Amino acid sequence: MTSDDQYTPHPKKELVADWNTLIRTFLKPEDEASRNILLKYMEPILFGLHSFLNKHVGITEEVSLKELAARYNSTHISANPEKKLADVITDLIEDIAPLAVNVASPYFIGHMTSAIPFFMVHLKTIVAALNQNVVKLETSKVVSIIEKQVLAKIHRLIYKKDQAFYDEHVQNPYTTLGCFTDGGTLANTTALWVARNAAFPPKDGFGGIENEGFHSACRAYGVERGVILVSRLGHYSLRKASGLLGLGNQNLIPIDVDDKNKVDIDEIRAKISEIKKDGGKSKIIAVIGIAGTTETGAIDPLTALAEICGENHIHFHVDAAWGGPTLMSEKYGHLVEGIEFADSVTIDGHKQFYMPMTCGMIYFKNPTLMEHVAYHSRYVNRPGSVDLGIKSLAGSREANSLILDSTLKIMGSKGYSLLIEHGIETAKNFAAEIRKRRNFQLVTQPELNILTYRLCPSDILEKLTQASVSEKQRINDALNEINRNTQRIEREAGKSFVSRTTLTRKEAYGGEIVVFRCVIMNPMTDMNILNEILDEQENIFREIFENGDSVRRLLS
Amino acid sequence: MTSDDQYTPHPKKELVADWNTLIRTFLKPEDEASRNILLKYMEPILFGLHSFLNKHVGITEEVSLKELAARYNSTHISANPEKKLADVITDLIEDIAPLAVNVASPYFIGHMTSAIPFFMVHLKTIVAALNQNVVKLETSKVVSIIEKQVLAKIHRLIYKKDQAFYDEHVQNPYTTLGCFTDGGTLANTTALWVARNAAFPPKDGFGGIENEGFHSACRAYGVERGVILVSRLGHYSLRKASGLLGLGNQNLIPIDVDDKNKVDIDEIRAKISEIKKDGGKSKIIAVIGIAGTTETGAIDPLTALAEICGENHIHFHVDAAWGGPTLMSEKYGHLVEGIEFADSVTIDGHKQFYMPMTCGMIYFKNPTLMEHVAYHSRYVNRPGSVDLGIKSLAGSREANSLILDSTLKIMGSKGYSLLIEHGIETAKNFAAEIRKRRNFQLVTQPELNILTYRLCPSDILEKLTQASVSEKQRINDALNEINRNTQRIEREAGKSFVSRTTLTRKEAYGGEIVVFRCVIMNPMTDMNILNEILDEQENIFREIFENGDSVRRLLS
Repeated sequence: MTSDDQYTPHPKKELVADWNTLIRTFLKPEDEASRNILLKYMEPILFGLHSFLNKHVGITEEVSLKELAARYNSTHISANPEKKLADVITDLIEDIAPLAVNVASPYFIGHMTSAIPFFMVHLKTIVAALNQNVVKLETSKVVSIIEKQVLAKIHRLIYKKDQAFYDEHVQNPYTTLGCFTDGGTLANTTALWVARNAAFPPKDGFGGIENEGFHSACRAYGVERGVILVSRLGHYSLRKASGLLGLGNQNLIPIDVDDKNKVDIDEIRAKISEIKKDGGKSKIIAVIGIAGTTETGAIDPLTALAEICGENHIHFHVDAAWGGPTLMSEKYGHLVEGIEFADSVTIDGHKQFYMPMTCGMIYFKNPTLMEHVAYHSRYVNRPGSVDLGIKSLAGSREANSLILDSTLKIMGSKGYSLLIEHGIETAKNFAAEIRKRRNFQLVTQPELNILTYRLCPSDILEKLTQASVSEKQRINDALNEINRNTQRIEREAGKSFVSRTTLTRKEAYGGEIVVFRCVIMNPMTDMNILNEILDEQENIFREIFENGDSVRRLLS
Repeated sequence: MTSDDQYTPHPKKELVADWNTLIRTFLKPEDEASRNILLKYMEPILFGLHSFLNKHVGITEEVSLKELAARYNSTHISANPEKKLADVITDLIEDIAPLAVNVASPYFIGHMTSAIPFFMVHLKTIVAALNQNVVKLETSKVVSIIEKQVLAKIHRLIYKKDQAFYDEHVQNPYTTLGCFTDGGTLANTTALWVARNAAFPPKDGFGGIENEGFHSACRAYGVERGVILVSRLGHYSLRKASGLLGLGNQNLIPIDVDDKNKVDIDEIRAKISEIKKDGGKSKIIAVIGIAGTTETGAIDPLTALAEICGENHIHFHVDAAWGGPTLMSEKYGHLVEGIEFADSVTIDGHKQFYMPMTCGMIYFKNPTLMEHVAYHSRYVNRPGSVDLGIKSLAGSREANSLILDSTLKIMGSKGYSLLIEHGIETAKNFAAEIRKRRNFQLVTQPELNILTYRLCPSDILEKLTQASVSEKQRINDALNEINRNTQRIEREAGKSFVSRTTLTRKEAYGGEIVVFRCVIMNPMTDMNILNEILDEQENIFREIFENGDSVRRLLS
């Protein structure tokens, strides 16, 4: 088919769109047979979401991307129905699901996406069926009230204010403890939006940055730029937010990390002093601490950062998208100590709260700070109403708060803490096993449940550490090639999955080093599985060694 | 309970969080009884989402907001589970759902939220169970491929490019026809973000606005502000986006509308001329046309706007969040004529595509324009990859594209066009009925499926049009009070729901006029129901008349 005009869809049976069929689809399946097919599929989806997924992890090249691209290339919407509902569901389960990625597999330890409790699917189903829009009370009623309540619960988990504080704010339509967002990116963006506006508030003859824009703000305040400081391991959403907010992403200033991948406090202090010496040309809008970096899981020294921000009157934001739920563990909660001093905190629901895609949250210590981003309209979100859309980057929003609220009741904080502890302790044991094996080098020790390592046999590591600068580079390049290839071969085999990233270890190893990155968050992932993964990688390595040049180059 | 420290949860039966229970929740219900309770509730949710909702619309004051606020005020997360899964689900269905808003009721005609086909809940359930994250191929695989395909399908619906164009771009990892977003607000924001960056691209000595920020951009280009022009009926998300992007929301310039609520083309031309006379100090970043205003459903003259933008080299954005799907109707598609000239188009999935909350989309005529907002990182979204997160405001995203793709197959464009046509034609008949009744004044004639009207008996209307300016104001104030009260009494009675907004009709009627706003999108909403609603409003009016002063004041 080459021409648009000649296109006619040819479904097996001619289906026709008509009013009665349509009305029925708002109510019920077309007949008993159709209902039975739907039930047949929905039951296993609701009660064991694993069974219909590919047994393997599935980022395999069995059906290559090129083949898939060729298969899904028609761009016509057919006029009449192409398929019956039951057939579309059948396709989803039998054709599409096996070619999706089985993120629920305990062998999938490469990204911050994992298995979720089966009941999460029920809760999401109920949220979809209710179809409430929490942008306004008139399309959500009690659900907006519950959203405010669960926001207060997590606020309390973070900030531990007293009972009187929460009595005052939990259902107060004039104050805002936080906001649900589409995800961590928008939570971080919201925090920096608020911080930007708080840094350039209205004053005599100036209506505030939200009203007049960043150029006017710079002139009104006599500054040339607004900067944000964060560890160079900060999530890329922070750079994107700085660009989006009109600050320019080059003004997100990356600060070096220490050997534990935590932001270097002395460097932050030095940078702030340096900035202050430029005659007030640069306004520091925020300093960001990370509670669980995406690549290594490291937690910045939050209390020290809070002190620096306090001394310098800077908004202190903590990106705890990953590490926030660690607060629920009595054993490891201390790791995120200092988070309670943050002016704002990002936490993701779809990460360590084990909610389905996607749910982010942003919290503010000061319940009036979100006034800086309040918007009203004439048909909803009138001042003083309970409408949650008044202070929210997004407009219409689904009620993911109901899922979190329900789950907190079902799991209790102890349920979550068991998951957190399993992750941290399994990662620790995994690190110990990697250290034991002579083919591997542990690159970053896990503080939470994320670690990185690479194939680097101990004799090569010894050679590497003693080599000259150019020799270091040569060896490191070869190691990078081996690790890149191993990760690819492992991924394509489809049995297990680790991700890869590149870390800067110039001084020690002569360049950017390619590492395997592992995220241990699936309670079914245990040491047996992790040993299998290491075995598989060693096998791939041996094969590369026997067939390839790179390893020989290493040893030459 | 007054003190934080004394708090201990007392569930009826002591539940304890333990590892085995936890592991099981990732796999299956605790026992057969629990599974049966879940099934009992999930079946009606899946096959008739109406039955468990309140029979009435439900924004009732039966349980007042104050009572609800008092009921949902505890801010503690209990350590052990508070309730069993089955009990939490029972609460959701029996206690919470009846206090939510029955947006699926055919009597709920107040907002752009309505009934959805029952199978939407199935599709959302499958998306949740798959739990794919389309930010990157490694957590979505085929689902990212399908997302690109469905984006191309809707792009084709809008832009009708030739087959070769779609063959080239449908699965091209280097180009981008559009992007799914959380909702229309973020779709509009994405469009304006792209337009802003395209207006201040890198040039000698300047790295571009995304990189250096808006203040530097202004200096590099010798301008003082970036402005956006839109009808004063533009959605409030546009003002918010202008603030967010650092342009300042006062630089979203509202243009007057004509008597059909369409942006006044002469005024736009005049405003552009005026701006151009300021010596290049103001850069016009975009002109926005609206295809279906939120308050009245009016469609701006898109072709004329496109011409103006073409002549002046201005980015032309169309906010078709509401009206976009009209393209699928052969009968009414012409209403959005000119949309194909837009540089970018917003369409919402959760509005007239009848998808569950929430799903927005943004489309670009030029498949390379989104390069202006490309972001990469070291562990995902590497250049040249199929990772959809490279060009997207959000990060992690659920695969709502699968829902739209499946629904297009199930409904066909004709299925959608039947819904569109029902809405437009029912609104037209409703308007005719309002005109017939002497107690009502039709304020805005529906062009699509949105109309506004108010209680304003014909004799009062006559009096009003002939009155002096001060007299007009007095009568209008009284009418506003009556209409506000009627809408509130109707809402609190809980049988039906229309929203209210305020329109500017100063010249004709002496001020801002309060109107009922109706959105006819539920296929079960018919003239019988609409007549019932009018009857109900007339009854409320009569009661106000008999008991209150305002109407008597009107007639004095």
